[in-house]
Amino acid sequence: MTTDTTITIDESQIRQLIAAQAKAICAKNLDAIMAPYAKEVINFDVKPPFQTKGADAWRQTWAACLPYFPDSAGVEMRDLRIFVSGELALAHWLWHLTGVDQDHPAAQMWMRSTGGYQRKQGRWYIVHEHCSVPFDPFTGKAVFTLEP
Amino acid sequence: MTTDTTITIDESQIRQLIAAQAKAICAKNLDAIMAPYAKEVINFDVKPPFQTKGADAWRQTWAACLPYFPDSAGVEMRDLRIFVSGELALAHWLWHLTGVDQDHPAAQMWMRSTGGYQRKQGRWYIVHEHCSVPFDPFTGKAVFTLEP
Repeated sequence: MTTDTTITIDESQIRQLIAAQAKAICAKNLDAIMAPYAKEVINFDVKPPFQTKGADAWRQTWAACLPYFPDSAGVEMRDLRIFVSGELALAHWLWHLTGVDQDHPAAQMWMRSTGGYQRKQGRWYIVHEHCSVPFDPFTGKAVFTLEP
Repeated sequence: MTTDTTITIDESQIRQLIAAQAKAICAKNLDAIMAPYAKEVINFDVKPPFQTKGADAWRQTWAACLPYFPDSAGVEMRDLRIFVSGELALAHWLWHLTGVDQDHPAAQMWMRSTGGYQRKQGRWYIVHEHCSVPFDPFTGKAVFTLEP
């Protein structure tokens, strides 16, 4: 049986998962970043390749790009929306890093994220993530600002 | 109660929704394209803006870009994965247009799509879509090929 109260608790668990991961990214803590991923997660990342299959490959992607992340940053999120039903959840939001030197490439870069979550034995796992920026069809260039 | 049989039927309904929409895009049929969207859908499109809120705004986006679509095309999809639980579904896949003149901008362009679906009164609606291509962080350019 699903009640409004269970839905609220479920949504709050997804919200916490997303917040904990943002914190892990800011701390550049690879184990904490990887903790919620399902073994069979498929990621569509902001940069090539088109997709990354499995948590092991995704961990290598994070390990390779963390050195380029600023040593101290926060995450600002906007327009988070969460859907939950049964053992499945979906969330999407906009985000960017804050407190970064203005000359760092990440300083002005907003991104869109979509997450898919599956609950197994009472614990939520990320089964899919899609992170991207739009591109300008006239220039072929990626667009990083919310109001281009 | 959810049984394996219901899950299979649900997945098949989502698969049909995705296939019907691909067919509608190839036919440049705006009403058929828009039919499965929830009124409050939020879209992350391949081009700016970062997000489009609501089916009315999304219809305007489609109306504006359909004239640039090839008059005759097919859709090839790859790696479709579907999750369903209760009244929520999530799907992701890669796709591109086929049968398009090689000099048309869409000819070589692969895309990644993620869809979120909610069932209301027995009918599935798209509540979120995220369509993108990755970008090359060294050139800032969008990447359209599966193997860059």
